[in-house]
Amino acid sequence: MKNTFGTSVSVTLFGESHGSMIGAVLDGIAPGISVDESFIAKQMSLRKSVGSISTARHEADEVKIVSGVFNGKTTGTPITFIIENQDTRSRDYGELAYKARPGHADYTASVKYHGFQDFRGGGHFSGRITAGLVAAGAVAIQALASRNIIIGTHILSCAGVYDRCFEDIPTDIAKLNSLDFAVLNDSVKAEMIEKIEDAKRDGDSVGGRLETAVYGLPAGVGEPWFDTLESVLSHILFSIPAVKGVEFGDGFMLADRRGSQSNDSFRSADGRIFTETNHNGGILGGISNGMPIIIRTAVKPTPSIYQEQQTINLNTLDNTSLVIKGRHDPAIIHRARVVADSVIALTLCDQLSLRFGTDWLAQN
Amino acid sequence: MKNTFGTSVSVTLFGESHGSMIGAVLDGIAPGISVDESFIAKQMSLRKSVGSISTARHEADEVKIVSGVFNGKTTGTPITFIIENQDTRSRDYGELAYKARPGHADYTASVKYHGFQDFRGGGHFSGRITAGLVAAGAVAIQALASRNIIIGTHILSCAGVYDRCFEDIPTDIAKLNSLDFAVLNDSVKAEMIEKIEDAKRDGDSVGGRLETAVYGLPAGVGEPWFDTLESVLSHILFSIPAVKGVEFGDGFMLADRRGSQSNDSFRSADGRIFTETNHNGGILGGISNGMPIIIRTAVKPTPSIYQEQQTINLNTLDNTSLVIKGRHDPAIIHRARVVADSVIALTLCDQLSLRFGTDWLAQN
Amino acid sequence: MKNTFGTSVSVTLFGESHGSMIGAVLDGIAPGISVDESFIAKQMSLRKSVGSISTARHEADEVKIVSGVFNGKTTGTPITFIIENQDTRSRDYGELAYKARPGHADYTASVKYHGFQDFRGGGHFSGRITAGLVAAGAVAIQALASRNIIIGTHILSCAGVYDRCFEDIPTDIAKLNSLDFAVLNDSVKAEMIEKIEDAKRDGDSVGGRLETAVYGLPAGVGEPWFDTLESVLSHILFSIPAVKGVEFGDGFMLADRRGSQSNDSFRSADGRIFTETNHNGGILGGISNGMPIIIRTAVKPTPSIYQEQQTINLNTLDNTSLVIKGRHDPAIIHRARVVADSVIALTLCDQLSLRFGTDWLAQN
Amino acid sequence: MKNTFGTSVSVTLFGESHGSMIGAVLDGIAPGISVDESFIAKQMSLRKSVGSISTARHEADEVKIVSGVFNGKTTGTPITFIIENQDTRSRDYGELAYKARPGHADYTASVKYHGFQDFRGGGHFSGRITAGLVAAGAVAIQALASRNIIIGTHILSCAGVYDRCFEDIPTDIAKLNSLDFAVLNDSVKAEMIEKIEDAKRDGDSVGGRLETAVYGLPAGVGEPWFDTLESVLSHILFSIPAVKGVEFGDGFMLADRRGSQSNDSFRSADGRIFTETNHNGGILGGISNGMPIIIRTAVKPTPSIYQEQQTINLNTLDNTSLVIKGRHDPAIIHRARVVADSVIALTLCDQLSLRFGTDWLAQN
Repeated sequence: MKNTFGTSVSVTLFGESHGSMIGAVLDGIAPGISVDESFIAKQMSLRKSVGSISTARHEADEVKIVSGVFNGKTTGTPITFIIENQDTRSRDYGELAYKARPGHADYTASVKYHGFQDFRGGGHFSGRITAGLVAAGAVAIQALASRNIIIGTHILSCAGVYDRCFEDIPTDIAKLNSLDFAVLNDSVKAEMIEKIEDAKRDGDSVGGRLETAVYGLPAGVGEPWFDTLESVLSHILFSIPAVKGVEFGDGFMLADRRGSQSNDSFRSADGRIFTETNHNGGILGGISNGMPIIIRTAVKPTPSIYQEQQTINLNTLDNTSLVIKGRHDPAIIHRARVVADSVIALTLCDQLSLRFGTDWLAQN
Repeated sequence: MKNTFGTSVSVTLFGESHGSMIGAVLDGIAPGISVDESFIAKQMSLRKSVGSISTARHEADEVKIVSGVFNGKTTGTPITFIIENQDTRSRDYGELAYKARPGHADYTASVKYHGFQDFRGGGHFSGRITAGLVAAGAVAIQALASRNIIIGTHILSCAGVYDRCFEDIPTDIAKLNSLDFAVLNDSVKAEMIEKIEDAKRDGDSVGGRLETAVYGLPAGVGEPWFDTLESVLSHILFSIPAVKGVEFGDGFMLADRRGSQSNDSFRSADGRIFTETNHNGGILGGISNGMPIIIRTAVKPTPSIYQEQQTINLNTLDNTSLVIKGRHDPAIIHRARVVADSVIALTLCDQLSLRFGTDWLAQN
Repeated sequence: MKNTFGTSVSVTLFGESHGSMIGAVLDGIAPGISVDESFIAKQMSLRKSVGSISTARHEADEVKIVSGVFNGKTTGTPITFIIENQDTRSRDYGELAYKARPGHADYTASVKYHGFQDFRGGGHFSGRITAGLVAAGAVAIQALASRNIIIGTHILSCAGVYDRCFEDIPTDIAKLNSLDFAVLNDSVKAEMIEKIEDAKRDGDSVGGRLETAVYGLPAGVGEPWFDTLESVLSHILFSIPAVKGVEFGDGFMLADRRGSQSNDSFRSADGRIFTETNHNGGILGGISNGMPIIIRTAVKPTPSIYQEQQTINLNTLDNTSLVIKGRHDPAIIHRARVVADSVIALTLCDQLSLRFGTDWLAQN
Repeated sequence: MKNTFGTSVSVTLFGESHGSMIGAVLDGIAPGISVDESFIAKQMSLRKSVGSISTARHEADEVKIVSGVFNGKTTGTPITFIIENQDTRSRDYGELAYKARPGHADYTASVKYHGFQDFRGGGHFSGRITAGLVAAGAVAIQALASRNIIIGTHILSCAGVYDRCFEDIPTDIAKLNSLDFAVLNDSVKAEMIEKIEDAKRDGDSVGGRLETAVYGLPAGVGEPWFDTLESVLSHILFSIPAVKGVEFGDGFMLADRRGSQSNDSFRSADGRIFTETNHNGGILGGISNGMPIIIRTAVKPTPSIYQEQQTINLNTLDNTSLVIKGRHDPAIIHRARVVADSVIALTLCDQLSLRFGTDWLAQN
């Protein structure tokens, strides 16, 4: 299976950056879940390019649901989301038909698809394809919310500027989901945007880290081997373009600690089991322990920069150089946050459906 | 699918720490590959506990192949590896039948399996189960070698002591595969072992980082969405117990860089395409680009420590405390390195078989 | 995975009978295969209702390809087919919102989806959804043809009238693929149509048998267990609505024979291996033997009949009766034949791609 | 996935006819189900060869459970069944190393595995491998029984002698499960055995039909497309060696009927919904309707016969002839019946687990 992910709840992605439309098929979601199209539109708007720190390409990103929703509720059969491409300026991409952009998939696509791939705007590799994930993810987020499972992602760092970490998680998640530019510490927003604009002025780009919290996931979800919760979440996170690292709980920092600093003591109070710390990010032995799931994701700088770069001609395989034109993002970290929320929600719907049956998400 | 991973080449794991035997079924590997049992034994020995820095439990770890190999070669049908458990001292685990060890899967297993799990020595969650992965991985490593694809992992850091990074990768891999304690800079070995012994003396444990290089993987392997090479590799790496972070190429460091510092220029020379740097770790758009694959894996400190810890009684759900007895590793990073090699090899065999057909690995 | 089938080549179905559009996503097909839209249109026309023996609902069934084809060739990324529903007369279905049609999925859908399913015209269960399979199958048939693998299906029986069996298979397949009403013996066509019209006059319907031959499939495709060629082909054939039986080679007749009458002797001539008879339908031990694959499929009579039937009210669960109105087929066997060809082609593309790699179908 | 079947509950098969052991791994079965080893032994005995109508090869078929059962109950982690091969007389198979037995997989295995397969006694293709399915199936049957879902299979026909069809299904199932030679009409047993002995005397073999009823399966299980209940059941039934046809309800007979004779009227009484007839075999639109599931399976005559047969030499590809020696069954239909029960039980456990969650089977 290539462009389909998930078992009980699955999502299939299709489309190219400059084709007539892109979209997604969300299958297996429980019947009877209310689908709020204004929420979908809101999520889509978070992914959209905005202002000086994003690409000048502007898409309406209007989502049409053409199957699987009847009388405002999910039917249980495949939900298909279609998004028309409108603002495609393919003439900008002429030279890119044969010059591989460094950091992009042009060369690897050319090897894999023997030159038959739609190269325009990155084709099927374009970050634009994540729009289908966000539309499908919006339904998944609504499904989880009906079980009081909530998700929020903030920009933990951008261009070296750091946000504060999660503190009171339900409050922080609520705050994040009300923001366009998702930072917990309001004061870092201006600084991050300044750094992005600096990079833009230099014809360059910046990367960042996302940090996600999931609150309300019941204990007992995940598998000991292969389909550990970390495995399935990292699987889908690493398919977001530009993601190069994923860690859970204290992640890489645990490598420098001792066991006595890494173990989370169990406590019980009022019939509730919890751990005093959450170094393990809510996952032990691959299975949720009822504490918040904490995930950090590294996003590399947008590879499209305006400086001259060394590369090869894909037809002749000769060395050449390239100056990318067109409309590109000096940063995608602020747009990627809703993609992270979406894919995590899709994966958790799948895991919960496998664990508790296909009706569970709609039974509340 | 729970304890089975892979599509064209798959591995199924079974067994518990204190059951009669553990093992693995490796399916889909091409027919006609020579199976060198002494190589399997060598790989098993790398996973075994040794000396002062490992558990006092010593298993012969003799691998019996009971199917799928005929006249010394793979048949193409399932290869089953069986490893008998011998040195099981279940009496050590009495109290652990009802007290959840912090950092371990006892509590999550208890929720998921409603108390029916075999708790002895961690049962099916035990790191001991990785022995089956190492046996199966040894055949996968041999299969890849016949196509000149080689893999090596070193202890990049342990308890805060750092090894050097990869330099000349084929030479470094060859060196690593001749070592029991895998470091590139010989001088750090003593320092790491000292730190592990320090922790042991304190009834504590330490973690570390593994760095893996894969050399010789052809370009064009992996998928743009969902089954990106990063996705499938992280999926299996996160099912190794204690792994809490995975990154590719420069990974999390890319989050603080600019695009001009992260893109890898393409060059061609003598009909060979390569990149001048390898910040992306050999993967672009989810697909191999022919450069070495670079993976770093964070391993948390062994959760079994000898200090008193706060926890709950799984039967009464009351608060209590626990002092773990038994035989445990103050560090597993040196033993985990062969597990990383093994699971990466298994996953690459699957990807190559999907890409080029089920015979490809045996056609050289 | 629910509405997605296949591993290396997969198809995802979506849509409802009276929604805005239906369609399919075909993924994993090799890059570089020419997509002949007029061939797709021809295949769609074979599935369309025609004349007195089909439903009065007439759909243009114009297929729009919105992704995965670039410059007339497959790109290797998902191909999405969209077919708009036009001639939907939902007012005919009022009573069917709460009365279960015997022989249909109304009751089972109502239990599974708790009443949230789109009931109009059978919703997602409608035979209309097979249009997406036919569109995707047309590309699969073209892919196979490039490797000289051809498929043909005839109406072996309809309402008790029997066609002759396959004789010279390549010639017979060529003939069938030129016919709208697929019978090998021209003289039975009129007789079959007469029987269908008889049933229609009686407010009733008829069933039939399809027989399919695949010619040119290389030996060595399929698996010994679970994914036998019979298993994967029957899996997809049984998802065509109304199919209730599938057999291979001499099928059920073998049950009454002796081994000496069922075994196919092997012979070699001019370096070619073949069997003298083909009682096993080209499959031995689950794996193709190079002889034509022979499949017979039982199609039950269309459950929509105009006679009064006993049933229940899905809301009150009371007994009631029902007279179906609307536009229905007195037979679907003549329309089902192209669906059989399509799903078999899709499955064989998947099997060949798994066996020989993702490029094989385009390498000729 | 090749030798693994199922999603939430899966089974992995391994071993060869003349290897040291064969077996199966059953994964995903709910924790807490009692495992009655004497029931497993009883099921194994039904599969064993007995008396004059079976092969002279006699295996103890003692099943060792080496993982996944703790204190007599399932743990929820993989259950591994191991069966040692004892009565292997490999010297009988000398000539079969290079002569393809007609009707067997020797030739197709040789093409697929390039001659590396273990040819002794059919290797991995041997009917003997079904012993692992029967062991795993015994646990699945016990799991279903705890939810009052019961399964029974009878020999509907053997060598042209027909048993009566199911009448009172729960009573018939109880009867069948008490019999070694499973016929509903006691008087046909002797006649069937006589026909088998006749064939044996002639150095020949016979086939037959199995008919299975499943009673107690709740409505609402199965999917509309691809994973219809017919699809998943036929998938696994067609991987039993020698099965060449599968039908549900009235199956192929429906092809000759009218809709008015094929539809099953719905009725309700005492709050229970049922159909007055069961022509559709308990499945509508791919989903169970609460009525008994009825399945018929065609089993071809054992291909091992003692008459001289024409074949090829697999090494030289020359024409030659072959007289099979060794120990073979003149019929397998009476032994296949428990295999049918087993694979159906395994598949239903998977479907129920997907539908209602992984704990459902153990919650009663």
